[in-house]
Amino acid sequence: MRVLNFNAGPATLPLSALELARDELLDFGGTGMSIMEHSHRGKDFEAVHAETKSLMREIIGVPDTHEILFVQGGASQLFAQIPMNFAHVGKCADYVVTGAWGEKAVSEAKVVAKMLNTTTHVAASTGEGDGKEKQYHRVPEDAEIKPDAAAAYLHYTSNETIHGVEFHRIPSAGNAPLICDASSDFIWKKVDISKFALVYAGAQKNVGPSGIVVVLARKDFIAQGRTDIPKIFQLRTVAENDSLYNTPPTFAIYLIRNVMRWIKTEGGLEAMEKKNREKAKLVYDALDAHAGFYRLPVEKASRSVMNVIFNLPNEGLEEKFLGEAKKRKMVGLKGHRSVGGMRASLYNAVPVEWAKALAELIADFAKQNG
Amino acid sequence: MRVLNFNAGPATLPLSALELARDELLDFGGTGMSIMEHSHRGKDFEAVHAETKSLMREIIGVPDTHEILFVQGGASQLFAQIPMNFAHVGKCADYVVTGAWGEKAVSEAKVVAKMLNTTTHVAASTGEGDGKEKQYHRVPEDAEIKPDAAAAYLHYTSNETIHGVEFHRIPSAGNAPLICDASSDFIWKKVDISKFALVYAGAQKNVGPSGIVVVLARKDFIAQGRTDIPKIFQLRTVAENDSLYNTPPTFAIYLIRNVMRWIKTEGGLEAMEKKNREKAKLVYDALDAHAGFYRLPVEKASRSVMNVIFNLPNEGLEEKFLGEAKKRKMVGLKGHRSVGGMRASLYNAVPVEWAKALAELIADFAKQNG
Repeated sequence: MRVLNFNAGPATLPLSALELARDELLDFGGTGMSIMEHSHRGKDFEAVHAETKSLMREIIGVPDTHEILFVQGGASQLFAQIPMNFAHVGKCADYVVTGAWGEKAVSEAKVVAKMLNTTTHVAASTGEGDGKEKQYHRVPEDAEIKPDAAAAYLHYTSNETIHGVEFHRIPSAGNAPLICDASSDFIWKKVDISKFALVYAGAQKNVGPSGIVVVLARKDFIAQGRTDIPKIFQLRTVAENDSLYNTPPTFAIYLIRNVMRWIKTEGGLEAMEKKNREKAKLVYDALDAHAGFYRLPVEKASRSVMNVIFNLPNEGLEEKFLGEAKKRKMVGLKGHRSVGGMRASLYNAVPVEWAKALAELIADFAKQNG
Repeated sequence: MRVLNFNAGPATLPLSALELARDELLDFGGTGMSIMEHSHRGKDFEAVHAETKSLMREIIGVPDTHEILFVQGGASQLFAQIPMNFAHVGKCADYVVTGAWGEKAVSEAKVVAKMLNTTTHVAASTGEGDGKEKQYHRVPEDAEIKPDAAAAYLHYTSNETIHGVEFHRIPSAGNAPLICDASSDFIWKKVDISKFALVYAGAQKNVGPSGIVVVLARKDFIAQGRTDIPKIFQLRTVAENDSLYNTPPTFAIYLIRNVMRWIKTEGGLEAMEKKNREKAKLVYDALDAHAGFYRLPVEKASRSVMNVIFNLPNEGLEEKFLGEAKKRKMVGLKGHRSVGGMRASLYNAVPVEWAKALAELIADFAKQNG
């Protein structure tokens, strides 16, 4: 029996995408071998790769001005690769920080700045408290964001998976090219990609398994990238070779294809958004109905539709809550080790029924323990 | 029906490893979710990761002095990451080049040298001919290898997948720490890992699916790495976090586990080596028996046990050979686009029967067309 999986990533995948993978795992399309055993330069994998990109372009509405690239190393590698590519000498890598992932992006950009003789800047941060563990409860207003005049780009994290803080608008970047780490809120609603120089997302939330990053980037922006860094790290190399400069994670791309097929069958991003908003409303409403018992650290206007963060009155009750969840076949509700508390991730593949079951647990538990 | 797959990588995988993956794809070990949907920090994936490393340590005989790490980005990324980590200022990144992959490693090292103010050196190259496409027919003798006095390390490619040139000994590196790209001849015979500062291998030949690299590295060597490069690229970061600094390709690690279980069940590296030498002998003997018809570009002493390279009298016959192979359910025999001709890859998971079938085809085809 499948459990109700609220993991933050790697996360639950659409059942149909997994079933198809299972059914053809030993013999892909009658070729007598697994898709994993196919050459990445053969026509069978080529067709998978092309279908994946084409479905993604259609579903998201990626304009022709932008490439769809697959990169390895996780979003954490992009934290280094982006300034290596785009922080030119005399320019400044600029960041909006609204949580732990934004902090990590800045931290790597600083190392790159030292290595490549550029600079970094923080255009806005909503971090509260000193020391290592800052708290984040909201995204900044546009008026609070002050990009550097020499910004090579402005980078932000549209949804902070750990802190549950989400931008519900595209922030203003002034004249700077806008770069977005969309790892945990990718492909769940329509977004105007033309507004971005580059959007990237680790696949292991809404898109597929871990080990692959989707990059949507403007062709002319890619072309402007630095040429004095290793070839493997230049996004130009990835684009010029259609993500086949070296062997890509073929099975991950194949699984993304299966997920894209599922999204299309379900009705595309309109259907995804409707379902996702319904799920988030179910869970947040249940928590708000027992606001004296549960504590929600994030300001209402910045609450994440993907990752719902909440605390119980004490750690003992948190343990008890997780135990009660387990009895109801719900897993993956423990918050990130750096912030504690609870986290329910409600990505595309989480059915509305799971959110309903979670809302019921939230209500029942407050009544019994409040 | 499964075909006889001689792909060079991604390559054929042990049937039992795929069958297990299929059987538990939707429900890993009764947990109610796929291994792909498990958190990389949860106890279920942790157990998979630990078993994978432990089997690998046992099978290969990795000494306690060395870490087993999993890295993303392919061996091509290591071409940049190795000099970034280990080519210290005032030192020289030193290379032995015996084919296309060694060339690529040098090429990235040169970019890194410029970026990080170090130097590169070629201690030996067996490349023949000028221009872009050098020919490689052999590995150098130890006397031909002249490491730089300031070598930070000496890097070589133990088996060149494209050119079919293999070292059948560990070359002498003088005083320099020895680094080996063992992508296409990893874990098929016993090798004394203690002789190496670092060995790395893209998984998609003998180990698992594409999208992951295995790194075996001496702990004190890792600790000496540069600290002025992005954290994500420091092997120190990978080691300190047990390959979990960021989300690893969890499914790839799981599949490597299945392959390790298969190797152990089959009798470990002694059994692998025996079978591999038998397969290579079958194919090379068939080719040598029709030496007037087939041309083998690699000198006998440097012939690869993993990748058998051969040419037919002309391209028309090569096409015909591939057609005849296809009739006998054999695929993946076309040589790399950069060198042409034929290539039969005989990794661990290729059964002896397939090599027999290929040897028969080689003999039959020469008789019919010679």
